[in-house]
Parts: sequence; C-alpha cells; structure tokens
Amino acid sequence: MEAVKPHGLKTDLYELTMAQVYLQKGKTDKAVFSLYVRKLPEERNFLVSGGVERLVNQLGEFRFSKELLKFLKSLNLFKDWFLDWLEEFEFNGNIYAIPDGRIIFEEEPIVQVEADLPTAQILETFIINILHLETVLNSKAGRIYAAAKGKILVDFGYRRALGFEAGNIASKSALICGWNATSNVEAGYLYGLPLSGTMAHSYIMVFGEEEAFKEFYKTYPQKAIYLIDTYDVIKGAKLTVKLAKEGYKPIGVRIDSGDIPTLVREVRKLLNRYGLSDIKIIVSGGVDEYKIHQWGPLPIDGYGVGTKFSTSADRPYLDMAYKLVEYGGKPTFKLSEGKKTYPFKKQVFRFYNPNGRMDYDFVTFYGKQAEGEPLIVEVVKEGKPVKDLGNWKQARERFLSDFEKLPERLKGVQKEHYEVQIDARLEPERFI
Amino acid sequence: MEAVKPHGLKTDLYELTMAQVYLQKGKTDKAVFSLYVRKLPEERNFLVSGGVERLVNQLGEFRFSKELLKFLKSLNLFKDWFLDWLEEFEFNGNIYAIPDGRIIFEEEPIVQVEADLPTAQILETFIINILHLETVLNSKAGRIYAAAKGKILVDFGYRRALGFEAGNIASKSALICGWNATSNVEAGYLYGLPLSGTMAHSYIMVFGEEEAFKEFYKTYPQKAIYLIDTYDVIKGAKLTVKLAKEGYKPIGVRIDSGDIPTLVREVRKLLNRYGLSDIKIIVSGGVDEYKIHQWGPLPIDGYGVGTKFSTSADRPYLDMAYKLVEYGGKPTFKLSEGKKTYPFKKQVFRFYNPNGRMDYDFVTFYGKQAEGEPLIVEVVKEGKPVKDLGNWKQARERFLSDFEKLPERLKGVQKEHYEVQIDARLEPERFI
Repeated sequence: MEAVKPHGLKTDLYELTMAQVYLQKGKTDKAVFSLYVRKLPEERNFLVSGGVERLVNQLGEFRFSKELLKFLKSLNLFKDWFLDWLEEFEFNGNIYAIPDGRIIFEEEPIVQVEADLPTAQILETFIINILHLETVLNSKAGRIYAAAKGKILVDFGYRRALGFEAGNIASKSALICGWNATSNVEAGYLYGLPLSGTMAHSYIMVFGEEEAFKEFYKTYPQKAIYLIDTYDVIKGAKLTVKLAKEGYKPIGVRIDSGDIPTLVREVRKLLNRYGLSDIKIIVSGGVDEYKIHQWGPLPIDGYGVGTKFSTSADRPYLDMAYKLVEYGGKPTFKLSEGKKTYPFKKQVFRFYNPNGRMDYDFVTFYGKQAEGEPLIVEVVKEGKPVKDLGNWKQARERFLSDFEKLPERLKGVQKEHYEVQIDARLEPERFI
Repeated sequence: MEAVKPHGLKTDLYELTMAQVYLQKGKTDKAVFSLYVRKLPEERNFLVSGGVERLVNQLGEFRFSKELLKFLKSLNLFKDWFLDWLEEFEFNGNIYAIPDGRIIFEEEPIVQVEADLPTAQILETFIINILHLETVLNSKAGRIYAAAKGKILVDFGYRRALGFEAGNIASKSALICGWNATSNVEAGYLYGLPLSGTMAHSYIMVFGEEEAFKEFYKTYPQKAIYLIDTYDVIKGAKLTVKLAKEGYKPIGVRIDSGDIPTLVREVRKLLNRYGLSDIKIIVSGGVDEYKIHQWGPLPIDGYGVGTKFSTSADRPYLDMAYKLVEYGGKPTFKLSEGKKTYPFKKQVFRFYNPNGRMDYDFVTFYGKQAEGEPLIVEVVKEGKPVKDLGNWKQARERFLSDFEKLPERLKGVQKEHYEVQIDARLEPERFI
C-alpha cells in the first residue's frame, strides 16, 4: 500500500462535505485553525514537537488530480463547481509553527493555519496526521533519551512499527532526540541517519555460536557485536572471552532475553576478569524507559530499543486537536465539557530561571510583545515557505539545547508538572 | 515522506550483514522461517490475521535498484560480489500462509517462508512489518466488532493513526471486521471502502447551530447527521426536533463529549416524545471496546471509533516473531528463556464442536493429515502467487464466517482462553 500522489484524498469525508457548504454559502473569510495538544498524558512530562518540516515540504502535494476528482464525483455528493474548485486548489495561506525538536507542553500551538475557511478546513486531517505522528514519536524518543542518562541508544523499532512510514519517522525521531544510531536501512537512506546492527538468533543457529561469532568478526572486524543469549548467556560470554584471546575481540556483546540484572552483572564481572572491560554490554528485548530507569545502576553500556519505542507503546496517541480559533476576525471557541478551546492566533513565550533552566511558558495573543523567548515562527507566507527549517540535524540541535534547560524533575518517568500560563484575556467566557 | 520503490531497503542492517556472511560461507541451503505471535496479550482473546494479500502483492517490489545499491556501497560494509547478488535478487521461494481475515491464536504460523537462507533472511523486517501492522489492526477491529454486538461502527481513526499508511490499513481492517463505513477518503479510493461522515465543531461555530444543520440538510438530505454537542447537547437535541418538524429531519445526531449515559438517555427520550424514534444516536470521542461494552444497555445506535482503534491504543503491538525453524532439512530452535521456538514447517488444524463452534486448534507438522480444518495454504510457489486471495471483501467473508463460530466467551473484553495444542513431537528438547 503506497500513498498516491497528489495527496488531496488524505482527508476525512466531512472536510469536503463541509467545504462545499462553506463555499455555497460564501463562508470564505479568513480563518485561523490551531493545532495543539489539549493535555499531557500521565505518561509524558514534556513533548517534543515534530512534523513541521514535513508539513511544509509536502503541503504543495495536497492537490487533486483528474483521477482523484473522478473518484470524488463518483460519490454523488459533490457539485461540479465544487470539484472545479478542488481542481484549482493549492494552499495560499500562512502557517505559524514551532520548529521540530523543541520541548513543548499542553495548549501550545505547534501549527497555526491562516487561510480562507474552506482551504484551512480541508487540510485538517492531513495536518493532524503528520504532526501527531511525529510529535508522538519525538516525545517518546525524548523521554527514553532522558531515562538513558547518556547511555548508548540504538533504534531497533522498524519491524514492529505500525507501518513502514511510522518506522521511518520513528528512526528519524530517535536521531532527533539524541540517540546514537538506527538499524533501519531505509531511514538511513532517506534521511542520512547513522546505521548500526548486530546479528540475529537465526544466524547463530545456522553456524553454531563459535563459528557465527568468528565469521562475523572476520567480515566486520570494527563492528562486531556478539549476540550471546541464543542458548546460554554465561556460556556465550565465556566463548567471547576465548575468542577475544584468539584475536576475535568484539566491540560488544548483546543480551536479548533472560534475567537481565543477574546476567549483566555476571557477564561484566567475567569480561573484566579477563581484561575485557572495554567490551560493551548492550541489552535489547522489550526495552523501554521504565526498564532503562529501573536498570540505571547496572553495568549496561547501551540499549537496543525497538517495539515499545516505535509504537510509543505506553501511550500511542496524544490528545491533539485542530480547532477553529478565529473566523472573519472574530473569536471562535467551544464550550464542550472537558474540551474548552481558547480563541485567536497565539504566541508562546518561554521564561527561564536565573540558572538558565526553563521556568514557565506563557500563552498569549500572537503579535503581543513579552520578555520571554517566543517559540512560534512564521514558516509559510501566502503558500510559500519563508524559513529553512533544516533537517533532523537542526531538529536534534534544538532538542539537545532545550533538553539541557529542561528542569531535572521532568526527566524522570514519574509524572511531574510544568507550568503553562494562559493569558486570562483568552478565556472563552469573555467572548460569549 | 513517501516510500521509495523498489523496496529492498525496507530492512534492518543486520539482515544484509548476515546475508553477506551466509553467502561467503556457502550457507545457502533451503531455510524455513515461521512468522507467528508467541503469546496473546491480556487484552486480546483472539487475533485476526492480516497482511498476507499485501505481502504477496508487494513481494515482487523487494528489489535493489542501482540507486539503492549505491547507497549500500557507501556504507563500506559490503563487497561488490554481494552487491551484485542483491542486484539480481528476487524472491523465488515458497510461502505458506493463513489468508487475511481468519480468527487465529498464539503459535499459529501466519506466514512460513521457504527459500535459500540469505533470501529468506533479508525479507525478515519487510515481512514482519506488513504482517504485524495488519494483524494488530485487524485484531483490534475484530475485538471492537465483538463488543458492539451489531451496532453501527464507523471508522474515524485516520487523523491520529500513526501515519497515513497505518490509517489506510486501519480503515481496511475496520471493513474486514464487519464495520459499516470509514470517514477516510483515501482508503475509500484505494480499496473501494464505503465512506461516511458527519460535520465538525468548526462548522457549527462558523454558521451557528441552526443554520449549520439546515444548510447541511439542504445539501445532503439523505446523509445529514447533526453534531449536537458544540454548546449544549439538550439544546442541540431540541433544535433537532424543531428542524425535523420544519422538514429538515436528519438520519441521526452525533454526541462527541460529555456524560454519555445521561445525555443519550435524555436525547432518546426527547426525540421519541416527538415521534422521532428513527433518528439514530451516534456517539464518538474516545470510544473503544471497553466503553462500548460498558454502554451496551444504553440507547445508542452506533459509534464513531477513532484514535483508540487506529492506534490499537490498549495494545499497539503483538509479540510477533519471524524465526528460523528449519535449515538444510534439519530442525532449528531456540531455548532462550521465555522465547522457546518449535522447529519445522507447520500446519494448523481447527476442530469444531458438534454445535459448529470452534473447539480447539492443533499445531503439527506441515503435510501431516488430520481430521480438522487446515488453516494454512500455499500462496506463493517458486516466487509466483498460486492462489487469488481476493481483497478486503473476501477477508470480510472469512472473518464473519469465523466470528459466527467463535465461542461466545471469547467475544467479551475480559481475558478468556482458547486451547491451542502443540504436537508433542515438535518440542525442541527432542532435537537437542
């Protein structure tokens, strides 16, 4: 299943049926939609923004080819004048956004779209999907990075990610959030990410452990990491010692199963006893930030983190919304229970402590001046990109810089709160 | 981020590094790899197989173009003769599989690949990703279908699925597992799925409720479902009664927030009082099988199920493995703690009660005769598809047929067990 270009069908049916009514009734004034996360889940102390670079690069592909229009016509819902409008569609509005890799919190608009109402409306599904995927995965990658406290992190998540697309974005997220490498060859190709890999149990089973290790070393002498848990971890470690003495010394060993605390302590002791303290111990198999946190004091040098990362298993979605906040210059908002929205286009200012750590954020009207650091920048003006957002490397710089300033309490796996103040003048009740 | 064809890079680095060693050392005998779910999670009483149709259709695209080979060469890991081998690569082996839409359980091989070892190895990541995605989403869709007990189910999950690819597969899964429609226009186009949609809060905010409903009705008289929770559900329901009297009678109302049990009871009573008992009540907003189960006795006609379905939120991954079970005609297996594997190519036989319900499954050697219904069929022979697996419609028929025979206890949200017997002659200890 490969996506079809152009992308105009990446939408929900109601975006199109509503747009037809908007156009029919002349509701084409300027609208502002705001995309943000309503509430941080229990399992996240911070979010890491993502998806803006991809949105800006792919926005031009949100078009309707003859073939797509023919399909829409077959639904018997749309008038010819509306299909003509779709045929001419291209985004000509403005986008204000928080660049990829920033540490952010609830109620902070990652993307704000300013365009005529039907245009801004039909992009809803497309925009949410891109921003949600990347923010979910960046946020998970950042949380795991925080738990690892500088230990090596390699992404093993491609195979059980929910799709190849999600797997590739996960690998990019890992590298944005300070990880060392990925095993995902396609992501290495698409984004220029550093690649890494070890060996599988099948490989061991075919050769037997000793020949498997030796042959791998001979072919990849600088890269060999021996997988030692296929039959018996301690025997695998002893074999590693023997082979190291014979000239086949790997850079590491990997343990993928078993009672990790006991095993890594024994393996570390064994290797050290033979002067092999520089052979790294890498642990994989169901690893996530909770295990990394729990195993913090153990002699583990690094982790292969797979499925639980690439599916964001403890929290695979965010309560991300794309809400109309202004129409025809007037505020719009919702009072639905638990889903209140604040009107108008916004800016987020960040305030720091004297020691340089993040203190609190302040959400207010866009264009208002304040002393803090503004997080939102204009990225698209009249349909054209106005800012080079860079690639994952620039996003990584942003993340690592923000991470240094993140309060320590937010780096753990326990729930902690960061203060986001909302300008009281944005309260919807004021505008009823 | 669009996937690049050909697909040969949809793999993990170690598949390629291991394959090079296999070829170098002449380990090119026939291998059999088995893909299955090791253990059903607490949150699933049954799985629904998926991904075989896509695998068979896309296998031919797992090739290496000049451009991809140039990238691999730049990694400085691969010898020219190996890159030449990759250039010639095409799958020429056999695949045995359980067709999409079947109800299955742990240890049942959904896909078994029989080919020379390097070929079967480098496909690992590609195969797992396809089968895992579709089996995760089919299984979630099937579980929600079971909880809904015949009520209307519409997929609203595209926007917060983890990627467009996952979103489209989710929509297909929904329709495979008995749902009524999807809001996802792209999936409608790609797979020919029935489409459905209502209206958004933004639409209500722009027009005001009364005009919003009326104008929608005028444009889509056969399709109108009024969203009544933007400001006050009861007021929205009263407005619906008023409009119905004036000739704008919708087919349904949708409630997306608030105290659902209280609201739907009141709305139902109100509508019935005015002779509008045929206006359906549709509930959306954070719906999953747990809520559907809990709300079973309420007067709800159908559900819009989104994020928690399309991310398989309660359990976004399965413990799915692709394991070498035979090499050069000899059994292979692993004894790793908690990850034991059974050797050899297998068949699964299903046995039914006299009343036609599924009784137990029996996993044994492939080719062995038994009285039960064999679930595994040959789908690819020497690289060529040998069986037309149909599309989602045939998968839906398989699912609905199996669902009828599924024991009632497995249809609830509480954990229940189904018996999978494994032929004692497959125990790995026998072959040490």
